[in-house]
Amino acid sequence: MSLSVYLENVRTKSPLIHNITNYVTVNDVANIILACGGSPIMADDPDDAYEITQICNGLNINIGTLNARTIPSMFRAGHKASELGHALLLDPVGAGASSRRTNTALDLMKEIKFDVIRGNSSEIKTLFMGSGNTHGVDASAVDAVNDSNLDSMIEFVKGFAKSYGSVIALTGAIDLVADSQRCYVIRNGRSEMGRITGTGCMLSGIMTAFIAANPEHKLDASAAAVCMMGLAGEIGYSYLQPGEGNATYRDRIINAIYNMTGEFLDEGAKYEIR
Amino acid sequence: MSLSVYLENVRTKSPLIHNITNYVTVNDVANIILACGGSPIMADDPDDAYEITQICNGLNINIGTLNARTIPSMFRAGHKASELGHALLLDPVGAGASSRRTNTALDLMKEIKFDVIRGNSSEIKTLFMGSGNTHGVDASAVDAVNDSNLDSMIEFVKGFAKSYGSVIALTGAIDLVADSQRCYVIRNGRSEMGRITGTGCMLSGIMTAFIAANPEHKLDASAAAVCMMGLAGEIGYSYLQPGEGNATYRDRIINAIYNMTGEFLDEGAKYEIR
Amino acid sequence: MSLSVYLENVRTKSPLIHNITNYVTVNDVANIILACGGSPIMADDPDDAYEITQICNGLNINIGTLNARTIPSMFRAGHKASELGHALLLDPVGAGASSRRTNTALDLMKEIKFDVIRGNSSEIKTLFMGSGNTHGVDASAVDAVNDSNLDSMIEFVKGFAKSYGSVIALTGAIDLVADSQRCYVIRNGRSEMGRITGTGCMLSGIMTAFIAANPEHKLDASAAAVCMMGLAGEIGYSYLQPGEGNATYRDRIINAIYNMTGEFLDEGAKYEIR
Repeated sequence: MSLSVYLENVRTKSPLIHNITNYVTVNDVANIILACGGSPIMADDPDDAYEITQICNGLNINIGTLNARTIPSMFRAGHKASELGHALLLDPVGAGASSRRTNTALDLMKEIKFDVIRGNSSEIKTLFMGSGNTHGVDASAVDAVNDSNLDSMIEFVKGFAKSYGSVIALTGAIDLVADSQRCYVIRNGRSEMGRITGTGCMLSGIMTAFIAANPEHKLDASAAAVCMMGLAGEIGYSYLQPGEGNATYRDRIINAIYNMTGEFLDEGAKYEIR
Repeated sequence: MSLSVYLENVRTKSPLIHNITNYVTVNDVANIILACGGSPIMADDPDDAYEITQICNGLNINIGTLNARTIPSMFRAGHKASELGHALLLDPVGAGASSRRTNTALDLMKEIKFDVIRGNSSEIKTLFMGSGNTHGVDASAVDAVNDSNLDSMIEFVKGFAKSYGSVIALTGAIDLVADSQRCYVIRNGRSEMGRITGTGCMLSGIMTAFIAANPEHKLDASAAAVCMMGLAGEIGYSYLQPGEGNATYRDRIINAIYNMTGEFLDEGAKYEIR
Repeated sequence: MSLSVYLENVRTKSPLIHNITNYVTVNDVANIILACGGSPIMADDPDDAYEITQICNGLNINIGTLNARTIPSMFRAGHKASELGHALLLDPVGAGASSRRTNTALDLMKEIKFDVIRGNSSEIKTLFMGSGNTHGVDASAVDAVNDSNLDSMIEFVKGFAKSYGSVIALTGAIDLVADSQRCYVIRNGRSEMGRITGTGCMLSGIMTAFIAANPEHKLDASAAAVCMMGLAGEIGYSYLQPGEGNATYRDRIINAIYNMTGEFLDEGAKYEIR
């Protein structure tokens, strides 16, 4: 199965993505959504967010730098986008690091049906344990994914995907993207991406564009976005010149998304389905 | 008439520009104002904005990501800047996309006399229709400017400029910058600029610096800024290396503004006055 | 005395730095903290900031774009970080430019014991005069530091450092970093750094990481961070290609921090201790 079709749909349909996101990485999120072929719009005042989301195709809620004004915006826009059948992604930045972040993410999950939840292992574990749907999975063993815990981690993300009823994307050195039946195990990317702020936020932005443009294939489209981001990290790195570091690397990753072709994606994606 | 004098005045006077702007593109707005020779300052708390605007030479109000806290700041700073005779520009980002944005822009226009309003065709049309001063102009025909509708669009922007009493800048593939008498028709720029977030916001920032430094020539200075931004898009594009995309292109545009000379501007500006 | 040990401690300990900072330059602050070896986190909602700061090693409070929501966050996080013995830095952006900024900075200084205050000459002078601890120092003579006023400015910063009981960093063409006994006079950097937005904010971010990683040597670690930032400005400038300007220069400075070694720092630092 080729992943390039999901990218082509983004390029053809150019979905409009409403982002309620943190102010640290918002500019990079906007530029990477444009790079992949979507259109970004940001609105986080409750009244404005409620209206703006109605003209969009997808909603990306990222709780980093949440506040008393933006939290109600997340709920109002989320409810409306859900009612309209838009693509819905939750990026629970910092869930587990503060009760405000943890509780906001969990309350959003309760009230709004997200298509995809994407986070690192610590955030995903926090949400899993807090959501109460443990179904016998031993979450205490949940950790960064590596080859020795791969089997149990695949079971964990499939179990969480089943209990909550969405795609779960647990990203890290090895990325797992699963629904209740299938789990993509993805090995694209480079560790140096962790030295750039916002690679996770950027990925969530393009994943929302991918699921908005491929509503019938949310798991596969999500996996395609994750492969593409990792591959962009590999391509961007290959363009680095002597003396360049994380600031330029960030731009070269966005550039690589901009220049990504279906052929590059199909040739460069490193994954297996379990 | 040479446009370079307007740039030279920015470089010589280094106007201090107060920006109440969205958090998506604010960093690029600050850097491009510095690149063209001005100085940026941002303040959007009502009390702080009221004081800060008093030490400035111009005020750039951009309603993207407006909220309940920043809207009063726009009015308070706008009234004060108006009272002090500062250069005043409105960038009605997303007017027409939500009632909150539309109404805020229209209310600002009613209460504060802007020197320049700069937007795309959809935003400008929304403001024209909402401002009630239709004066017999058929706004239903207002659309992106192209060669086949050029004559009627020139009449439209001149009519709007006359009824509201400001410079109207309708930017797109062809840019129109008009007062009631004269309309600059500008053909600089590249379509790839639309794949970068914030080129419009950046343009509004430098336009505010241009009108602040050239208070007696607001139309011509506005047109000079529009030509310069488009030309920077052309120069920046010429510097792109293989593998580079929208992220690097953004920086190369700001770089081109930084290195712009009066000679480059006069040689590269492509406009006629109608 | 070698400065490289202070950088090495940042790289080894990777302190987690909580930044309550302005939205203009926040992305650059995050990336430069990552570049120097620290980890950034941003939270500015009062409840969230209070919790987040507890898992960190240092707190960087920057009052640019302060507002009614973030000011209480600065106090709550500041008190908690102080109670926990975390590294604490104040960047009084725009103190003197509005009463809200001046008063917030002075109130923060009264209630919270900062380890370092870093600002330009105008900001530092405002805080000195407002803090009431003039101790006979003639602040009317306080100005940008140059060779002709160097002796008196050194006395001034030492006096301020003694009266307030912190490190005072007055940065400009010549940087002074002093406690009550010793003053580093630093001559790294380039004037073109002033054409980039946020070089001061970025410096405050890495200074917080340096004092967090070197709690027993706050003066020397602060001076090391100031030397490194100036040196990165020199190295970054040397990498500029034809046609590049302030946008790319910003990234090349962050890149230079990313690639900085202890040897580069020790060889390139230009300072004397007075």
